[in-house]
Amino acid sequence: MPVKFADRMSTVHRSFIREILKVTEDASIISFAGGLPNPELFPVADLEAAAVKVMRESGPQSMQYSTTEGFQPLRQYIADRYMEKKGIKVDADEILITSGSQQCLDLLGKVFLNAGDNVVIERPGYLGAIQSFSVFESNFLTVGLEEDGPDLAELERVLDENEAKMFYAVTNFQNPSGLTYSAAKRQGVADILKGRDVLFVEDDPYGELRFMGDFEKPVVRGYLEENGILLGSFSKVAAPGFRLGWMVCGGEMRDKLIIAKQASDLHTSTFAQRVMHQYVTDNPLDNHIEKIRERYGNQRAAMVQAIEEYFPAEAKVTRPEGGMFLWVTLPEGMSSMDLFDEAIKNKVAFVPGRPFYVDGSGENTFRLNFSNSDEEHIVEGIKRLGAGIKDFLSKA
Amino acid sequence: MPVKFADRMSTVHRSFIREILKVTEDASIISFAGGLPNPELFPVADLEAAAVKVMRESGPQSMQYSTTEGFQPLRQYIADRYMEKKGIKVDADEILITSGSQQCLDLLGKVFLNAGDNVVIERPGYLGAIQSFSVFESNFLTVGLEEDGPDLAELERVLDENEAKMFYAVTNFQNPSGLTYSAAKRQGVADILKGRDVLFVEDDPYGELRFMGDFEKPVVRGYLEENGILLGSFSKVAAPGFRLGWMVCGGEMRDKLIIAKQASDLHTSTFAQRVMHQYVTDNPLDNHIEKIRERYGNQRAAMVQAIEEYFPAEAKVTRPEGGMFLWVTLPEGMSSMDLFDEAIKNKVAFVPGRPFYVDGSGENTFRLNFSNSDEEHIVEGIKRLGAGIKDFLSKA
Repeated sequence: MPVKFADRMSTVHRSFIREILKVTEDASIISFAGGLPNPELFPVADLEAAAVKVMRESGPQSMQYSTTEGFQPLRQYIADRYMEKKGIKVDADEILITSGSQQCLDLLGKVFLNAGDNVVIERPGYLGAIQSFSVFESNFLTVGLEEDGPDLAELERVLDENEAKMFYAVTNFQNPSGLTYSAAKRQGVADILKGRDVLFVEDDPYGELRFMGDFEKPVVRGYLEENGILLGSFSKVAAPGFRLGWMVCGGEMRDKLIIAKQASDLHTSTFAQRVMHQYVTDNPLDNHIEKIRERYGNQRAAMVQAIEEYFPAEAKVTRPEGGMFLWVTLPEGMSSMDLFDEAIKNKVAFVPGRPFYVDGSGENTFRLNFSNSDEEHIVEGIKRLGAGIKDFLSKA
Repeated sequence: MPVKFADRMSTVHRSFIREILKVTEDASIISFAGGLPNPELFPVADLEAAAVKVMRESGPQSMQYSTTEGFQPLRQYIADRYMEKKGIKVDADEILITSGSQQCLDLLGKVFLNAGDNVVIERPGYLGAIQSFSVFESNFLTVGLEEDGPDLAELERVLDENEAKMFYAVTNFQNPSGLTYSAAKRQGVADILKGRDVLFVEDDPYGELRFMGDFEKPVVRGYLEENGILLGSFSKVAAPGFRLGWMVCGGEMRDKLIIAKQASDLHTSTFAQRVMHQYVTDNPLDNHIEKIRERYGNQRAAMVQAIEEYFPAEAKVTRPEGGMFLWVTLPEGMSSMDLFDEAIKNKVAFVPGRPFYVDGSGENTFRLNFSNSDEEHIVEGIKRLGAGIKDFLSKA
């Protein structure tokens, strides 16, 4: 007789995007479906030098079991960088190193979510968070995104009418929409959350990838004093294959998160942490990020320009000032899932928007990634896609 | 107002051993408390060569996001080694690479355990498993360990009288007891489990560290055909700081475990997987394991000999043929926790046994680690400890 699975597994599914990506593996397809950083920009030679240095200077220690909290010098580096770049005060002891920021979501689910607890997410929302929190049988509530952040009236109404445990938000160049919270929206979110026992989880993997315009402070510690946890990652500013993320949190919350991490994987790779620390010590991260900004900025410009040339006016597209994604909204009643099938025939791919909406809406939306294609392919791909959309509109 | 934690966190505690280790950080203390492999044996130069090769030959790919299942050539290597070393047939597609074998426990909890589900563990049992499964609010049942494995009559009674979801066992050189299942016990366990819908989880991090005697086949696939999952790890045969473990499982169980892993950390470090694969490809692992066996074998012999010389006959000690631990049983009524306080004064440390017993027994037991001390310190430490025990007995 087969062994029964836990109830929680009935509500968790394979990543929709990973399934989509299988369809787009055909080399003749120009794919804007993935969410990968551009591997040509990974600092391979500098990371190799860092790895060799770590092996030679602290070989055995770099391969031994280590503390659950993470490598202290790396935590110190991250804390210092928050003050330098974002003007918020973070102590190294408030950093918990994780195995990618996806693990932050798992740990937050473990530590905070009982089955049935309400979690507020953005509409559209980040799939990785939906998947992680679903493991803990959370119930999702949503708040719509406007050009400059969440609909504050809706956020307040949702929090007034429901007992929510958590509000999860990606405040810079959100995945999937590319949208960023303005200073006013950040203040508004903080004002609404103040005094409530709702945890604000601010996920910020893309914040440093700003090509134009000005940085805003994080909501956590920039606007909101308590009940906030800030997530970060080396995946988009260095390389994702090391699986290095972190969370900023203090007090009893941190104690519980450390226990949850201990039970989950003891600690994050000692070697990966030390190599990354050596790399950022020997190579100013700003210099590397500048290269990413320049490249992604050019790719984004190429995509925006091609869209203006080849997309019909009926397709509305966001114009983010950074990150990795654009977001397209077709006229109401149109299905991006149907468009996807057509687009694949024309050898171009994207991610249909509906899976990003837990309420079943969003049928007429889709996501475009610009970080992992060169400008030539971007122009050709957008041309094909524009022709497909026009064809699609003419049949509607 | 502070945010409320999930109910599950009320039953999960910080690792007792990690707390104990803080007390033993004083360099003047000879510590047999840890469970660390000996870092002098980590193959630093060979791993450095492997890391450089990976960076030069597949730099960007080695740092990119990758599949949840794990690096295919590494899975193939592990599968082939099972056939070569243990004579069991495993397909590469039945291997799921994890972030250390601790993560296997977390994934198993996620996929199989509802709150209140019964999990059978050994008495004494592995603390990491107790901690991981506790996150999923499991209820523990126990089966006592005899010299050659579990008390089969007790195992059968426990399974007859209770609806159990899982039986978790460390079949070779168990942590903490050092005990190993004989062929007869393996067959007995398989016979008892046959036809029941109980998942048998066989954890085997120490199996290759055998200094004398013969290997036994794993219960899973060696004796038991269905409902078995086998766990493995590079931590004790190469280096733990890479956080590389795996599980052997097929069919729908594997599909669910992959979904759970995706939600937990997307995938294990691409770079760590590729470096380990390069290392085992260029350096026969058997050669390295032979060095570990020789060193640990000598350390174990020194500890056993010192115990025969310095411990009173009232202290019963296991004589494992491999692994990293010995297990001491004092006369009934004596407390190893009290002995610990005395031992620290004499500058020697061990891990008291009670935390390994979820039923509150085991007060008179303790664990000794021999992998991470040289022979000179082992003899001196055992001498101090023996004097402490004798002193303790004389006062009792």
